[in-house]
Amino acid sequence: MTKYPEGAEGEAQLDRMFRALGDSTRRAMVARLVHGPASVSQLAEPFGMALPTVVQHLRVLEAAQLVSSEKVGRVRTYQLVPDALVPANAWIVAQRRPQESRLDRLGDFLTQPQPTEKKD
Amino acid sequence: MTKYPEGAEGEAQLDRMFRALGDSTRRAMVARLVHGPASVSQLAEPFGMALPTVVQHLRVLEAAQLVSSEKVGRVRTYQLVPDALVPANAWIVAQRRPQESRLDRLGDFLTQPQPTEKKD
Repeated sequence: MTKYPEGAEGEAQLDRMFRALGDSTRRAMVARLVHGPASVSQLAEPFGMALPTVVQHLRVLEAAQLVSSEKVGRVRTYQLVPDALVPANAWIVAQRRPQESRLDRLGDFLTQPQPTEKKD
Repeated sequence: MTKYPEGAEGEAQLDRMFRALGDSTRRAMVARLVHGPASVSQLAEPFGMALPTVVQHLRVLEAAQLVSSEKVGRVRTYQLVPDALVPANAWIVAQRRPQESRLDRLGDFLTQPQPTEKKD
């Protein structure tokens, strides 16, 4: 299992990441970028938002290390950071109750394909 | 796969949940409650925080449907809502890149125990 980042900097990173995800517009931008890079205006389009508002949301996502950007000529393109959501996911997964982990293992055992006995 | 909540209310719920998790003290409270219910003063202890501050954090967690509380006599006890983190986790899992899902399936295939050929 991937470990979530620990220590003060790890906690600060998780703070930024979870807060960045605590906004439906920013979540929609992440969901859009899953399908490939996009320019600011492409990202702005579905939201009918002023570009500066969109840029502000993208800055929050960039500070949270969820997206990165590069400027080619006059166009800035945003893309999802590979494995961007792994730290948030790892934290959530680490919070399973001990009894749930046991149940998971039992579930894994029960759903694993068992060798079938041949009846001939 | 569990679906994350959709529609305006679903988005608002995810907003509250991710924002509630965007604070290291609140995450530590969730991590504590994974191991069982606790009173406000038990939750306050490791943080060396004033009780009103702790109560404020707990209210944010309760509004996000991550914890619930009940008062018996003069003691209010908090507990984790069962499957509390499922909506947040479901949203994160839904953001996998299409090619990652394909790789996951390939990975599953490759790591599945294969029938071994007996050499006798």
